[in-house]
Amino acid sequence: MNKSKAYIEEHKERFLQELVELLKIPSISADSAYKKDVLATAEAVKESLAKAGCELTEICETPGYPVVYGEKIIDKNLPTVLVYGHYDVQPPDPINLWDSPPFEPVIKKTEAHPEGAIFARGACDDKGQMYMHVKALEYMVKNDDLPCNVKFMIEGEEEVGSENLGWFIERNHEKLKNDVILISDTGMIAKDTPSITTGLRGLSYVEVEVTGPNRDLHSGLYGGAVANPINVLTKMIASLHDENKHITIPGFYDKVEELTQEERAKMAEAPFNLENYKKALDLNDVYGEEGYTTNERNSIRPTLDVNGIWGGYIGEGAKTVIPSKAYAKISMRLVPHQDWKEITELFKNHFESIAPSGVTVKVKPHHGGQGYVTPIDGIEYQAASDAYKEVFGKEPIPQRSGGSIPIVSLFEKELQSKTILMGFGLDTDAIHSPNEHFGVWNYLKGIETIPFFYKHFAKLKK
Amino acid sequence: MNKSKAYIEEHKERFLQELVELLKIPSISADSAYKKDVLATAEAVKESLAKAGCELTEICETPGYPVVYGEKIIDKNLPTVLVYGHYDVQPPDPINLWDSPPFEPVIKKTEAHPEGAIFARGACDDKGQMYMHVKALEYMVKNDDLPCNVKFMIEGEEEVGSENLGWFIERNHEKLKNDVILISDTGMIAKDTPSITTGLRGLSYVEVEVTGPNRDLHSGLYGGAVANPINVLTKMIASLHDENKHITIPGFYDKVEELTQEERAKMAEAPFNLENYKKALDLNDVYGEEGYTTNERNSIRPTLDVNGIWGGYIGEGAKTVIPSKAYAKISMRLVPHQDWKEITELFKNHFESIAPSGVTVKVKPHHGGQGYVTPIDGIEYQAASDAYKEVFGKEPIPQRSGGSIPIVSLFEKELQSKTILMGFGLDTDAIHSPNEHFGVWNYLKGIETIPFFYKHFAKLKK
Repeated sequence: MNKSKAYIEEHKERFLQELVELLKIPSISADSAYKKDVLATAEAVKESLAKAGCELTEICETPGYPVVYGEKIIDKNLPTVLVYGHYDVQPPDPINLWDSPPFEPVIKKTEAHPEGAIFARGACDDKGQMYMHVKALEYMVKNDDLPCNVKFMIEGEEEVGSENLGWFIERNHEKLKNDVILISDTGMIAKDTPSITTGLRGLSYVEVEVTGPNRDLHSGLYGGAVANPINVLTKMIASLHDENKHITIPGFYDKVEELTQEERAKMAEAPFNLENYKKALDLNDVYGEEGYTTNERNSIRPTLDVNGIWGGYIGEGAKTVIPSKAYAKISMRLVPHQDWKEITELFKNHFESIAPSGVTVKVKPHHGGQGYVTPIDGIEYQAASDAYKEVFGKEPIPQRSGGSIPIVSLFEKELQSKTILMGFGLDTDAIHSPNEHFGVWNYLKGIETIPFFYKHFAKLKK
Repeated sequence: MNKSKAYIEEHKERFLQELVELLKIPSISADSAYKKDVLATAEAVKESLAKAGCELTEICETPGYPVVYGEKIIDKNLPTVLVYGHYDVQPPDPINLWDSPPFEPVIKKTEAHPEGAIFARGACDDKGQMYMHVKALEYMVKNDDLPCNVKFMIEGEEEVGSENLGWFIERNHEKLKNDVILISDTGMIAKDTPSITTGLRGLSYVEVEVTGPNRDLHSGLYGGAVANPINVLTKMIASLHDENKHITIPGFYDKVEELTQEERAKMAEAPFNLENYKKALDLNDVYGEEGYTTNERNSIRPTLDVNGIWGGYIGEGAKTVIPSKAYAKISMRLVPHQDWKEITELFKNHFESIAPSGVTVKVKPHHGGQGYVTPIDGIEYQAASDAYKEVFGKEPIPQRSGGSIPIVSLFEKELQSKTILMGFGLDTDAIHSPNEHFGVWNYLKGIETIPFFYKHFAKLKK
């Protein structure tokens, strides 16, 4: 048994308990009602870094929630790994669909996780995956097995678009100087199929407001005679996709990276079973852009989804009203070369231009970020690949993810270093959904694998 | 000064105070949380009828909220007037748009009501207008001026479709026997322009549910690959109107009564100023079915409006989710000859038929009712017209209303008597909206006018 495995075996109960404590704090960055909890989580992360062996730990203030920084510099001549993660979590709603309270972690067995999984908001995204790095550091320090300098940059605004992380990075180039950025905030294909995420989609998130009459009206007295903001909003949103599910915003596809048939063929080799995919979601069919497969639709193609819509009377029973306003939250997932600010502008101009007379429309950009692609011929990828090989006994598969970590492309621009994405979550872990969970096996496997990345990266960097 | 006017002058402070007390009880029939208040309101109405002079008053149980019944039979040979009204009210939301709490009535002057108006939910619809009849009865009894027998049937489920009133009427034909049904639950054109509502639209109210994946999903990992129930719902709703704002449900217009050019020309004579209409609602333009005027669109034409829509994340900030479900409440206003049950069936079949694969759709009919037209050559209309002439000094204008009192057509079918609609509210009274109010002048004018209807009806019935 390798050293790290033995150490993990000996301390795993504590490793789990420490994560459980962290998961109890509802660090919901989207809802200001939880401000105290978000700040308390930052403190808890700072303490865990100090305990794990960081010699310097700080709560770094920003215009928003603080960044937790920690470092252990063992030798200026050794390469430096910068670990990025986030301590904030998604809102838990719809709360009634959780089998157990989202901030009272419980460990239960599941089909995918016979060794048990921790159920709690943030278990996988990203407290659990971030904490793997804290425990891996503890192992390396306690066992004199740390071959690189380490820096941690753990933020509290990832789920709301990392609005102030750019601000922080611009002001701390020297402090954040590194040779590689290591992140665990993505997934792996399966427990027996390690994978490295080589692509992330960008994001543009907006909120729209349609205003009709200046007050709610009786639908009998005014119905049919004035524009109903809900009816109008549905028409406007519906028009954003054509019959082939292509997005109709002029210029939207102009800069989309088109993959070659070879690249698409290589993607198609990744294990995927459409029937199981539909079965897992109780779908009679999938749905998406003409001419692309399911795995292409959710990774290499840009999308537009309504994430929330509301207007009028949504209580029990019936109310015959024409509301004054209707709203929607809309997000677009972008692919490499699409600039999120440019896309946001295209959306805003188009959406305002299609508003019929009789209503006024407001588009409020929320946040966004660029897509990212990791080269698979660099030493970062090589080091990660070697680490997986040593622990899993097989080559990891490179895969494009449909998700976004908006800040990654900024890291490369600001810090001139590559990012490597070693994810240990499974697609079925329900991140952003009720009953989010993280496999105990995956959590411990991550702690076991990470030190091997340090080892191989130090070797390759020589 | 006529007798009734003098009596009202002497007692108006008490008349106002009694109504204020009634308005303080939040009798919201749509929300079961207010059940106690709805029942308490029934009791209060019963007592007021007894005080006003009814010799028999009862709380009549139904499968839903009770019907308050009261009667004063003075002579079997005299004609009998059955007064219908309702003691339940619409939900007050959006509550934050009220200038004063909806169930803490205040009297304030407005441009339309320089003598002051009572602001409260139900002030006009229908507690205030219903209570005019209670006070008119008090006057007639106290002053030996009652020329007819009187029966009151005041229900508590009008705002949720009078679901059990039909049940009650079928079982009480004898008790409810009458020569005319008198209702004040509509409006008048203007304070100096009395009008009688001769047409009501029917109603079909449904709730739809679109289900996609069996759980909320991360919009990055699944966006573009599965049907998003909100996107699909917007497409389905948008398709219910064509580019000319005609409703696309097959068969929807088959039985619609088409008015002659003469009838439309007569309608066009009613005073109406489009600029003022737009100004009052802060609209840059009106919106509706091609080929019809604003007053036609909201009275003689059927319509389809979304009254509420919801799905996904509607809290503060952003959540990148594809929800499992999306919902909408949709109501259709119908015109004479359209059968609401048939239209509900047409809607259900059509809406389910346009659901794309990848989602499942449920349509739940809420309630509905038929439209109604009052003949203007009957003695009921004549009596009302004479009453207005005596009090206002001018002929009332017959007008079609866009609103619905679903139960009216049932009255005629079950009780073989005509209904006359004497409304005293103004369009600007914001019924079903925040800041609903009822003019003090209108309230007192109604109490003054009603006894003249009894007088002329008794005369004409001889």
